[in-house]
Amino acid sequence: MESDFILFDKMAIIGVGLIGGSLALKLKELKMVNTVIGFGRTEQNLIDAKKIGAIDEYYTDFSHLKDVDIVIVATPVSSIVHIAKQVAQFCRKDTIITDVGSVKEDIVQELERQHINFVGGHPIAGTENSGAKAAFSSLFVNRRCVLTPTKRTDQAALTQLKLMWESVGAKVIMMEPSLHDKIFAAISHLPHVIAYSLMKCADSMDDIDKNIMSYSAGGFLDFTRIASSDPEMWRDICIMNKSNIIEMIRRFEEELGEIKKAINASDGHRLYEDFYTSQQARDNLLELNKNE
Amino acid sequence: MESDFILFDKMAIIGVGLIGGSLALKLKELKMVNTVIGFGRTEQNLIDAKKIGAIDEYYTDFSHLKDVDIVIVATPVSSIVHIAKQVAQFCRKDTIITDVGSVKEDIVQELERQHINFVGGHPIAGTENSGAKAAFSSLFVNRRCVLTPTKRTDQAALTQLKLMWESVGAKVIMMEPSLHDKIFAAISHLPHVIAYSLMKCADSMDDIDKNIMSYSAGGFLDFTRIASSDPEMWRDICIMNKSNIIEMIRRFEEELGEIKKAINASDGHRLYEDFYTSQQARDNLLELNKNE
Repeated sequence: MESDFILFDKMAIIGVGLIGGSLALKLKELKMVNTVIGFGRTEQNLIDAKKIGAIDEYYTDFSHLKDVDIVIVATPVSSIVHIAKQVAQFCRKDTIITDVGSVKEDIVQELERQHINFVGGHPIAGTENSGAKAAFSSLFVNRRCVLTPTKRTDQAALTQLKLMWESVGAKVIMMEPSLHDKIFAAISHLPHVIAYSLMKCADSMDDIDKNIMSYSAGGFLDFTRIASSDPEMWRDICIMNKSNIIEMIRRFEEELGEIKKAINASDGHRLYEDFYTSQQARDNLLELNKNE
Repeated sequence: MESDFILFDKMAIIGVGLIGGSLALKLKELKMVNTVIGFGRTEQNLIDAKKIGAIDEYYTDFSHLKDVDIVIVATPVSSIVHIAKQVAQFCRKDTIITDVGSVKEDIVQELERQHINFVGGHPIAGTENSGAKAAFSSLFVNRRCVLTPTKRTDQAALTQLKLMWESVGAKVIMMEPSLHDKIFAAISHLPHVIAYSLMKCADSMDDIDKNIMSYSAGGFLDFTRIASSDPEMWRDICIMNKSNIIEMIRRFEEELGEIKKAINASDGHRLYEDFYTSQQARDNLLELNKNE
């Protein structure tokens, strides 16, 4: 499927990994962009990106950004502000700068304070693999992509970005940066913190039995899958979305504390009610996902 | 594949669900048992069990237990002691009574105190489905089955039970009832309590956004899969393995508290160390499971 028009003449991707690479692949497949140039820390990854056709050329020097129409900053969340500021020094005033990070409020606030033409983005997509080699053009099909415009966001830039994400198959949702960070603290960052905590806890249980982990079944593996996520990425997310994550941990501790109290009191009625409520909520969520 | 000899002439299954039904199906397929009779609360389920060939006949009256060689009590954990005591009144002194419950210490202790010829068992197998209709003869292949003999356990009974579980494909592990309860509190009961707590917590987050759950992705669904488990079963497990589960919750709360403290202090070094340790532990576990 090719589209009828060029959305951007020249695009730059900073960090051509799974997300940046998949986005570029699909846009080139659709012929919605003429040229894609890549930047990154590791030359081998850029060679891979070029080989799979995600980028046409790669550079290390930001002076090559001077004629690009859009820059996708697809680097770890902790470096987005720094990189976007550098990028802004090399490209045109009207070049759209956007990102794909899991945290939004601090990034958007700081870049708008610097009068940079930035729109925050967060595609909810990914696999357990990383790097350009892991990229594939259908990654965003039927996935959500959050954009976080503010009063200061350029409307033309927002319209083009929305069109870009919809073109690669994503359903675009708009929300305020602060709401984004609250929602993802609850449904993504908290579960990761819990999974890491549980796995660390289980790892120190060899006082009970030195082969304790060998007794675990599939349920435990599923439950701890997200503990296999990149520790560097999650360290940065935790620090950048600190206040929301701390609040979510507090809420979770409260629920766990209530259940602990009910277990301690052998309060079967209360335990049944709580577990039943959770079971129903999980089943509703499953239904919601099936109907999509 | 048929075996050369009859392990039991007559077997009774109390509660012919996924576990009891699958065990009977396989033993009959192997012709290691001549007759299987079923008991249960719901006639329709017993009709189903007979239809799929798991049982030859079903009764509601325990007087039919008088000539059985082995009784498998496959009922919810909270009813095992009560049912095993009743069963013992109707069968021979040397009839083997065993169970398939997820908690062992209290059950084994109480039944041995009553001088009942009981051996505790816990096959680590299951699916999300329940009832005789869900039974299938390969359920136990390559799964572990824990047996929890004590000094008072009859050695002949233990040998026969071990042979029975190995015949249906399980790898039998022996351990003390109290160690079993500690291990499973850590690797199974704690994760369930956490999953229920997280799901309940998430269910009450509509103050943030009324569609908050619609933003969750596959990771959240995987992570909360075990929150879809039967609330009645988990209520009973929590109450019966109370002290071990409380201790595991305490350990988990400590880990989570440490991570919360590190987030609060923006202690990137500590967070990286903790997340890295967890990631390595999870990856080792995955490797362990692959090699089986």
